[in-house]
Amino acid sequence: MIAIDWGTSAFRAYRLDAAGAVRERRQAQRGVLAVENRAFAEVLEAEIGDWLAAERGPVWMSGMVGSRQGWREVPYVPCPADAEGIAAGCLEIGWGDGRRAAIVPGLLCRDASGVPDVMRGEETQILGALDALAGMRTACLPGTHSKYATLGGGRIERFATHMTGEVFGALWRHTILGRLGGAETDRDDDAFDAGVARSAESEGLLHHLFGVRGRGLLGELPPASLAPYLSGILIGHEVRAAAPRGPVGVIGTAELVRLYLRAFATCGIEGEAIPGEPAARGLRLIAEARK
Amino acid sequence: MIAIDWGTSAFRAYRLDAAGAVRERRQAQRGVLAVENRAFAEVLEAEIGDWLAAERGPVWMSGMVGSRQGWREVPYVPCPADAEGIAAGCLEIGWGDGRRAAIVPGLLCRDASGVPDVMRGEETQILGALDALAGMRTACLPGTHSKYATLGGGRIERFATHMTGEVFGALWRHTILGRLGGAETDRDDDAFDAGVARSAESEGLLHHLFGVRGRGLLGELPPASLAPYLSGILIGHEVRAAAPRGPVGVIGTAELVRLYLRAFATCGIEGEAIPGEPAARGLRLIAEARK
Repeated sequence: MIAIDWGTSAFRAYRLDAAGAVRERRQAQRGVLAVENRAFAEVLEAEIGDWLAAERGPVWMSGMVGSRQGWREVPYVPCPADAEGIAAGCLEIGWGDGRRAAIVPGLLCRDASGVPDVMRGEETQILGALDALAGMRTACLPGTHSKYATLGGGRIERFATHMTGEVFGALWRHTILGRLGGAETDRDDDAFDAGVARSAESEGLLHHLFGVRGRGLLGELPPASLAPYLSGILIGHEVRAAAPRGPVGVIGTAELVRLYLRAFATCGIEGEAIPGEPAARGLRLIAEARK
Repeated sequence: MIAIDWGTSAFRAYRLDAAGAVRERRQAQRGVLAVENRAFAEVLEAEIGDWLAAERGPVWMSGMVGSRQGWREVPYVPCPADAEGIAAGCLEIGWGDGRRAAIVPGLLCRDASGVPDVMRGEETQILGALDALAGMRTACLPGTHSKYATLGGGRIERFATHMTGEVFGALWRHTILGRLGGAETDRDDDAFDAGVARSAESEGLLHHLFGVRGRGLLGELPPASLAPYLSGILIGHEVRAAAPRGPVGVIGTAELVRLYLRAFATCGIEGEAIPGEPAARGLRLIAEARK
């Protein structure tokens, strides 16, 4: 089968054999926001036309491809949700000469105050990682919009999103914090740890942010330490506010997982990296549950 | 005397009579960042050349004009500080044919964790408002970088900055939060109050920010309510983290003072608007203390 994780900025395609192993993979910077004039079918033909010609059955797709800005909007499925519920919410579409696809729905949940939260794509990764997450109560998917999902009995019981990654980018690129020198991609683990520790102190995030400027202005932190320090402050506030029940399985790119495990350690939370390609595996589980 | 509040984006000049009353005022969008090639003397001659020709004595200036990006950098004075200490830290400069100016220093303080914080300009406003602030323990100056100053015995004992206004602008203009419609300047007091109330709930600011998107995406808040709701969330987090001892005197533009008094009321903190032109009055007090 063909499985596609089609997000806001990236397009990742997997070709799986009958046993579910990934045999081929292709990646392109052709995320949903980069697709012009809703030419999703054309992108698919251009990227994996040879696979489409060789495979029977629908292409399985998850992520922002199912959003209002995507190929077709697929209504959110409410939490708690399991593979069967998500499979039941898939939307099948056709195009061209008999081509078919199934688009996975996102999940909707409400926090204790009734405020709605949404995900699209992460639910598939979490389902794909459920075996590796055995015994863990929480999955954390750090990134632009970090997700904490509470797991139980093969279901995603609830989740909460934190806008951490996008806030970091906006602050570094569009406020005084990025004007003291240094680069957004600088690495400095000591400064990152200091930022995570700072997040436990009084007077709150908006004060801690100004402290990045204070320490930079007075030369108490060198320019190359400022972005990691800011990152640590934001991730520290996220982790402490999310207060996940450990052990927490962390799913993401290698560098983000490394930083989050550091942050969890500083906050006294047990964390563990979840390996593999959970999106491909999750799409396969959803396809099987739909049969 | 001539008193100038010369900040990052605005230039505000006052001409005072011998009794300290403001007789004339001029304002221009010629803040420090808009002055090219360090032509500060030329801007002064262009804006208030006629005053300079008529007055003896130095021009008194406060604000970012004394920063590294300003006319001349004036070293910070440490807290606690009073009018005498600030007056002693003023830097006198000369230009042209015998013209003179005195630039007021900013203040430096360290929070309970030793992280440095700075202000430039607000110290002069606070000094100028001390009479109106009689009986109050805290002055709040909301804005791009909101300041909370603890007062006692005619001194500024300590202060803390929150990056609230600048964070609001960066989030609205440069993240998904501004892409659901509505305008940065929309007003909706109910949505603002709901944001302030939201800031008391669990899971933290970075989660509450994503909730703005959730409520907008699901149509639970109309586009014109999103910016006020976001503003309420940020100001609410600021006020609760600052936790100022009331009654709090609020110094700022009419609309910001109005919003902060609403936020204080929601948070159960007593607040009061401080009227007048405290920068002009503060510069006069500093000039007198320097004699």
